[in-house]
Amino acid sequence: MNNIKVGVITASDRASAGIYEDISGMAIQDTMKDYLTSEFEIVYRCIPDVQQTIEETLIELCDKEQCALVVTTGGTGPAVRDVTPEATEAVCEKMMPGFGELMRQVSLQYVPTAILSRQTAGIRGQSLIINLPGKPKSIRECLDAVFPAVPYCIDLIEGPYIETDETVIKAFRPKAK
Amino acid sequence: MNNIKVGVITASDRASAGIYEDISGMAIQDTMKDYLTSEFEIVYRCIPDVQQTIEETLIELCDKEQCALVVTTGGTGPAVRDVTPEATEAVCEKMMPGFGELMRQVSLQYVPTAILSRQTAGIRGQSLIINLPGKPKSIRECLDAVFPAVPYCIDLIEGPYIETDETVIKAFRPKAK
Amino acid sequence: MNNIKVGVITASDRASAGIYEDISGMAIQDTMKDYLTSEFEIVYRCIPDVQQTIEETLIELCDKEQCALVVTTGGTGPAVRDVTPEATEAVCEKMMPGFGELMRQVSLQYVPTAILSRQTAGIRGQSLIINLPGKPKSIRECLDAVFPAVPYCIDLIEGPYIETDETVIKAFRPKAK
Repeated sequence: MNNIKVGVITASDRASAGIYEDISGMAIQDTMKDYLTSEFEIVYRCIPDVQQTIEETLIELCDKEQCALVVTTGGTGPAVRDVTPEATEAVCEKMMPGFGELMRQVSLQYVPTAILSRQTAGIRGQSLIINLPGKPKSIRECLDAVFPAVPYCIDLIEGPYIETDETVIKAFRPKAK
Repeated sequence: MNNIKVGVITASDRASAGIYEDISGMAIQDTMKDYLTSEFEIVYRCIPDVQQTIEETLIELCDKEQCALVVTTGGTGPAVRDVTPEATEAVCEKMMPGFGELMRQVSLQYVPTAILSRQTAGIRGQSLIINLPGKPKSIRECLDAVFPAVPYCIDLIEGPYIETDETVIKAFRPKAK
Repeated sequence: MNNIKVGVITASDRASAGIYEDISGMAIQDTMKDYLTSEFEIVYRCIPDVQQTIEETLIELCDKEQCALVVTTGGTGPAVRDVTPEATEAVCEKMMPGFGELMRQVSLQYVPTAILSRQTAGIRGQSLIINLPGKPKSIRECLDAVFPAVPYCIDLIEGPYIETDETVIKAFRPKAK
């Protein structure tokens, strides 16, 4: 397949209730448009911070929509309604601890509260799921850090071949062994 | 509530048997006195390295004593009696991997054996639990690294508002969204 | 006991089928010869990427062969056949997150895809198990980073006393408390 779908899930009680605009979800979509030269389609959901709802939405975007990449925003802090990492872990077959480690390390250059983010990443079938923080500025910092590894990761799980605008972000693919 | 309690648990077979003095537990208490300008009360326990005892003590300090912060020392290494991280994980609803990552990174600047520390952190109800290493010098290095994020973390889990002496340690609270 | 055994497990469908030579397993053995001045024996296995086989081989090398250190190569990526970290976690009593964190951090200095490695480490009985990446160059970079902590870790789990060639790699043992 080379029909590329990117899932974007905003987990936010207030955004999903229409109390405020989902600028975080929009920021991810704008970043994807900046990054990718491959044609792609966004599959977007804005849902409340309910673990079961997040799990069902992740499963829908991975299994039914067949998104190669699913990016979440929101719900990674320590508060009682922050359950996105738990939902992610529940639906993934493999966890990818390096994503969360690197994102926290990058965010620590800006704010010491970066250690409060529990964001992680994992693999479900042929989809890579990545949790991002809630704030647009942090979203871009985190994506800039991890995205160079994303296209090759999707190659390895037999997803579509994704090409980026190298003047914006350079995908790294090791030479054939 | 604004009655601030800080739990300090020393997990050590030898200190709890009176074979040597618990200088690590004392070092944490001294550090808290250095850091905090809010009035607070220490709830202190010195117990053996038995997982069930550590779990029960954590639960007591979180649920019954209602400590906003519970700090442990000891039992984070690879030895057979080192079970503090397992006890912590067993009683927490949410794990906070960023604390352990940052503490190991800081300790690595001093000793390559910092990677042997399995220290972690997590949330139980309205309490933040943080594992620290056993040695007083490392305790202070680790607390200096993570404490700027602690008051805001406790805000997020709806604990008391904690103020610090900014000439010693500066609590970071992001501006209102 | 002071009979030192080091287990080396290559998890690779192709190497175990004889499709190509196991240069990764050889690289680990060569590195051990470079590092250690203590006499030691290598116990080597080259097996397919099957979780149960990896688990059984880890158990054999820890429990029956009594290797103080078991090092694996291969199977740490995101692909469907990459299951070495899961096998490691399944057989270990204690996980040592600091090893994977440091190895990814070191590899990140060379390639942004280092975050795709899920390598970890853990303790089973009196054996330390460490997952390494698949490529010989990365194997050496990772071992150079973590090995200074390995002899002291093995002391703490009551394994044999391991000495290194300090002109190649310096084992760190903290002074007696």
